[in-house]
Amino acid sequence: MLPTLEFLNGCSEAEFVDLLGSVFEYAPWVAVAVARRRPHASVAALHAAMLAELDALGEGAQLELLNGHPELAGAQARAGTMTSDSQAEQGSLALGELADDRAAVWHRLNADYRARFGFPFMLCIRRHTRASALREFERRLANERNVELRNALAEIGRISRLRLAVRIADHGLRDITGRLTTHVLDLSCGRPARGMRVELHETGDAGRRRLRAAETDAAGSTGAALLEGEPLRIGRYELCFHVGEYFARRGVEVADEPFLDVVPIAFGIAEPEGAYHIPITVTPWAYATCRGS
Amino acid sequence: MLPTLEFLNGCSEAEFVDLLGSVFEYAPWVAVAVARRRPHASVAALHAAMLAELDALGEGAQLELLNGHPELAGAQARAGTMTSDSQAEQGSLALGELADDRAAVWHRLNADYRARFGFPFMLCIRRHTRASALREFERRLANERNVELRNALAEIGRISRLRLAVRIADHGLRDITGRLTTHVLDLSCGRPARGMRVELHETGDAGRRRLRAAETDAAGSTGAALLEGEPLRIGRYELCFHVGEYFARRGVEVADEPFLDVVPIAFGIAEPEGAYHIPITVTPWAYATCRGS
Amino acid sequence: MLPTLEFLNGCSEAEFVDLLGSVFEYAPWVAVAVARRRPHASVAALHAAMLAELDALGEGAQLELLNGHPELAGAQARAGTMTSDSQAEQGSLALGELADDRAAVWHRLNADYRARFGFPFMLCIRRHTRASALREFERRLANERNVELRNALAEIGRISRLRLAVRIADHGLRDITGRLTTHVLDLSCGRPARGMRVELHETGDAGRRRLRAAETDAAGSTGAALLEGEPLRIGRYELCFHVGEYFARRGVEVADEPFLDVVPIAFGIAEPEGAYHIPITVTPWAYATCRGS
Amino acid sequence: MLPTLEFLNGCSEAEFVDLLGSVFEYAPWVAVAVARRRPHASVAALHAAMLAELDALGEGAQLELLNGHPELAGAQARAGTMTSDSQAEQGSLALGELADDRAAVWHRLNADYRARFGFPFMLCIRRHTRASALREFERRLANERNVELRNALAEIGRISRLRLAVRIADHGLRDITGRLTTHVLDLSCGRPARGMRVELHETGDAGRRRLRAAETDAAGSTGAALLEGEPLRIGRYELCFHVGEYFARRGVEVADEPFLDVVPIAFGIAEPEGAYHIPITVTPWAYATCRGS
Repeated sequence: MLPTLEFLNGCSEAEFVDLLGSVFEYAPWVAVAVARRRPHASVAALHAAMLAELDALGEGAQLELLNGHPELAGAQARAGTMTSDSQAEQGSLALGELADDRAAVWHRLNADYRARFGFPFMLCIRRHTRASALREFERRLANERNVELRNALAEIGRISRLRLAVRIADHGLRDITGRLTTHVLDLSCGRPARGMRVELHETGDAGRRRLRAAETDAAGSTGAALLEGEPLRIGRYELCFHVGEYFARRGVEVADEPFLDVVPIAFGIAEPEGAYHIPITVTPWAYATCRGS
Repeated sequence: MLPTLEFLNGCSEAEFVDLLGSVFEYAPWVAVAVARRRPHASVAALHAAMLAELDALGEGAQLELLNGHPELAGAQARAGTMTSDSQAEQGSLALGELADDRAAVWHRLNADYRARFGFPFMLCIRRHTRASALREFERRLANERNVELRNALAEIGRISRLRLAVRIADHGLRDITGRLTTHVLDLSCGRPARGMRVELHETGDAGRRRLRAAETDAAGSTGAALLEGEPLRIGRYELCFHVGEYFARRGVEVADEPFLDVVPIAFGIAEPEGAYHIPITVTPWAYATCRGS
Repeated sequence: MLPTLEFLNGCSEAEFVDLLGSVFEYAPWVAVAVARRRPHASVAALHAAMLAELDALGEGAQLELLNGHPELAGAQARAGTMTSDSQAEQGSLALGELADDRAAVWHRLNADYRARFGFPFMLCIRRHTRASALREFERRLANERNVELRNALAEIGRISRLRLAVRIADHGLRDITGRLTTHVLDLSCGRPARGMRVELHETGDAGRRRLRAAETDAAGSTGAALLEGEPLRIGRYELCFHVGEYFARRGVEVADEPFLDVVPIAFGIAEPEGAYHIPITVTPWAYATCRGS
Repeated sequence: MLPTLEFLNGCSEAEFVDLLGSVFEYAPWVAVAVARRRPHASVAALHAAMLAELDALGEGAQLELLNGHPELAGAQARAGTMTSDSQAEQGSLALGELADDRAAVWHRLNADYRARFGFPFMLCIRRHTRASALREFERRLANERNVELRNALAEIGRISRLRLAVRIADHGLRDITGRLTTHVLDLSCGRPARGMRVELHETGDAGRRRLRAAETDAAGSTGAALLEGEPLRIGRYELCFHVGEYFARRGVEVADEPFLDVVPIAFGIAEPEGAYHIPITVTPWAYATCRGS
């Protein structure tokens, strides 16, 4: 069971550091420092205190901290020698299993970035798909060094916020996760469409991957959100609604080739912490969608 | 240059048969018979007269006619020994170039059909995709023999009508071709969307195949229809509208991952001679489509 | 303060009858009867017990009960001699203040109905507008007597259920009220429309009457429902959305005569206990609405 | 029968002036001048030549021309002493029949305008409703004198262009008239809605006035345009679609109070020479409209 904030405010420094020392990669001293400033009024306040420690460092010490992080899809990733947090983060994109030609792209970017800035590329990978991570990598390579130093610390802030959230039971952090929901309204009868199959796919350069399959309930929703509880990865997605099957079951007379069968809605996610509601209204002959609310 | 109906009504019988003898596969006698009934008031009347010859035949002679036709994806197709009309018709689906396992399916169906009914499967192939042809084949295999005899003659009627149309300059036949059009209305400014790229793909079992690429004009249309001048093949299609590119060019501020980028509209065509108008209305955040008119 | 069910289950019979004796018009004996069957597990159960008393009556006694009720827009209404409940119910449609020619219509219907069936017309008036009440009156006048006897008791069931609900604090009755809500989504920016004025009007024969004015909040809703807490009256309504004003404030360049200014959505309510959600999506050039959910 | 341009180019000067002398109010000399410049290549060229005569005038002569025009809703209008053209133009808005209080508003504006600028207010009244004419009047009253002199000549250009068009058979003028059309698509069956009644009303300050009633044909259109052949008057309008009646006739089961009955679409016209296409898509439970094309 995860500790509560109350517990963390009251436990020994050793326990505190044991629990939170890995929030910053190879930098348990951050936990040590904020342990001495207890109590913290909220997890957000605790996190802010941690980031204040980083901001207070001279550039030399900041670079040391940055250099404690592994590269994305780098040598450590392939060798399997990263911290378990980094392994989980990079593993979520399977960056250790890239085909040789794709790995070469990352290798080159890592080398160029380190040569240009003197520290590895920082990215809160849980907010990205491979495609958006690569695009971000290429864009940031063109920045000024001082801009990138700021960017790197900002990304460490994002990474550590997520790491903190999974270590504290009652973290109460808002805006660290996004939410993707849908709804189907059958305009031929003016009621929510019940029992329509829906699938969510991630699309994009890395190929098509089914993330979820669900079915609409009596309210026209899929019950639980299609995605929630973590950041939405910046990238492209497709929702597929099995409209033809739905109307066939309702006894709508349709041709051998129904006009609408599986309706694909292709969309992009740009805000990992955003609420994306993507409803459709549908008849056997028409549909409409939008970014809803 | 193609002859006119007037010319056909006035030419010699030999010329007439030379021009129209191949409308029915290996049955120039049909042309001979109707040459003697000239003049014909219209190409539709001429065609009706031809079909009346077939209807007047006894079953034995009808079977002989049917057996003059090649199988679909059959031995003659592979050997390249079909009439040029049949080659063009079957060639339009590349039925002579099926992979072995797919060819085996057609082979089995051909064999089963001939065994059951005593004549080859007739299908006006220009109205079909591979998927719809196969589905039709399987369904018709379950029919009663007298139903199939009627179906076979009806398909020969469809085939010969199309063959007639390409042999006569002023054929005036309506309803032998279909039409697929689109239109894009930009609801963010209340005007047709100009310069949006649109692509039409055939989808389905045989894989995805791009049929047309076009761009919308000042009226929001693609100028010429996306498909016209022949029957629309029964099957599944996808229209792809390059919405993201269009709004980016209009200076709409969008995120790295625009909510809408390429908008796919997947639809089925069930009526080869139908008019399919599939417009979309669009903003950077929403779209709607329907079977329009 | 209203009594709770627990209090009603525990109080003296006299108190019980004092509190609930007027639930049935001039028939406190119903309350007496069910007081003796306490405790009642729920208000629904209490109401069912009350109706069971009515069902158990012979026709003579039922007619006596019915005849205790005033006519709609009848002599008692004009004279102001009805019970306060009936006054409130009929008063909600201002049936005592009809113009002479309209009053004459009701008078004739009352007379015809009583002549035909021997008891006054029963209607749970809180579920009706004048127009729907009149239509119902005319239709029911054509029924068989036994059907109307059943209808009359059913309406008394509806009336008494509402009367019970306003007499018990924790009545827990579902489905005695309806709900009308709206939502505005601005498709030109993919976000809820904030600060749009909305008005709800009752329309119909009796003229146009504004029921509510509201403004959309940051979520695109009006906060509280436009109608709730009582049955929705069967009738016709219009929602007016001040779209032109909204877009003008957002700096959208529009002509002197904007294409869209006040957008009227005219709709009917047929289910007094239903949930009507009527959202619109809108740009300066287009809008869509539906019975949503 | 109206003369053709060819006739006008060949006839005597006297005939020419007889036919076109009243195109400019009390200024037959314009026709005289352009008669001497014949032939004119087109009616547009003829009109341009006429306007060139006006432009070439000194300010004194221009003022004289302007002062030959009657005021809007002025003394001449009430006395019935205007030219027949002016009578027809002002009569189309019934400006001679205003209630006293409304007439007083016009009277004041006329007086203020003449006092400020020294000539009467010029407006091509066929492009306006009363409301838009009044608004234009008030706005232009605030202009600089030289701007108003230009505006006055521009309006005389518009007036004379319309007068010219009704005097020449083959005038070939484009863009002197607008066009309002509609279309109804029934999304419950994917086909145009046939036989739906549609009404067009002018709305606005001067009250509600029905301009047209029509019925949709098999193509979902009203056949002829709802408005065409003259400028569309700047103003507010309402299209009413009898949706409830349509679906009832199609056997759609609906409640006593159908959700949709008469669907009003309120819109503004800002471009008198524009093409307004206002289609709706509809099911018994939803509809959408837009400025189409």
